[in-house]
Amino acid sequence: MQAALTIRIDADSPTPVYRQISDAIRPLLVAGVLRPGDSLPPVRQLAIDLAVHFNTVAGAYRTLAEEGWLDLRRHRGAQVMERITPPSVRPDAALKFGQRLRELVAASQAAGLPPKSIARQLRRIVEALDPC
Amino acid sequence: MQAALTIRIDADSPTPVYRQISDAIRPLLVAGVLRPGDSLPPVRQLAIDLAVHFNTVAGAYRTLAEEGWLDLRRHRGAQVMERITPPSVRPDAALKFGQRLRELVAASQAAGLPPKSIARQLRRIVEALDPC
Repeated sequence: MQAALTIRIDADSPTPVYRQISDAIRPLLVAGVLRPGDSLPPVRQLAIDLAVHFNTVAGAYRTLAEEGWLDLRRHRGAQVMERITPPSVRPDAALKFGQRLRELVAASQAAGLPPKSIARQLRRIVEALDPC
Repeated sequence: MQAALTIRIDADSPTPVYRQISDAIRPLLVAGVLRPGDSLPPVRQLAIDLAVHFNTVAGAYRTLAEEGWLDLRRHRGAQVMERITPPSVRPDAALKFGQRLRELVAASQAAGLPPKSIARQLRRIVEALDPC
């Protein structure tokens, strides 16, 4: 693995820790920072680094393997795979994304984050996704 | 309560159900669809409607009460409160929002949602937050 893997675990979050780990790694896979053939840190090493049980890290890797990102064959550790095809999109994917996006924005507004600051971060992602 | 409360529970989601409920209600509070003085459905009624345990709905209401949105005094049900002041923003709020936003976008891309579709939804929120 070339990129430094920075994962923040939030003990107060209602999101399970294994999921926090897979959520943190997935953007690196989507963006191609982690490429096919790259290796992720061994489960036990990452578990020590994050101070979590190794089953938690194993669960995160398994989640990503089920999504087609990782090859977890024995003796090789977790290796990034060539993801064969983009999966067929579930019909409610856009709806769900919209809902979760509105929930995230509302939670951040409720926490006092100024709308301009939220809008700035959204614009940055839009520019990366769909530059016009 | 004036607005119809539409809440989708996703049994496959790793997000606890009580949290799915509070996450779904919060945008209505932030947007002012639910206003001070409005009443939310009684815990037991919403629990029946959503086919969840009433403690789950009570947990969702408690979460929103702790955030200053709801008054849960006995005999009055859950009533929307005038939220006195915007809370002081935690210094890492913007950082956390950015991280969760990137994770959400990556998960949706990984699920095959086209970047243009993601960007369209982001733009819609930007326009509502910070019209220029």
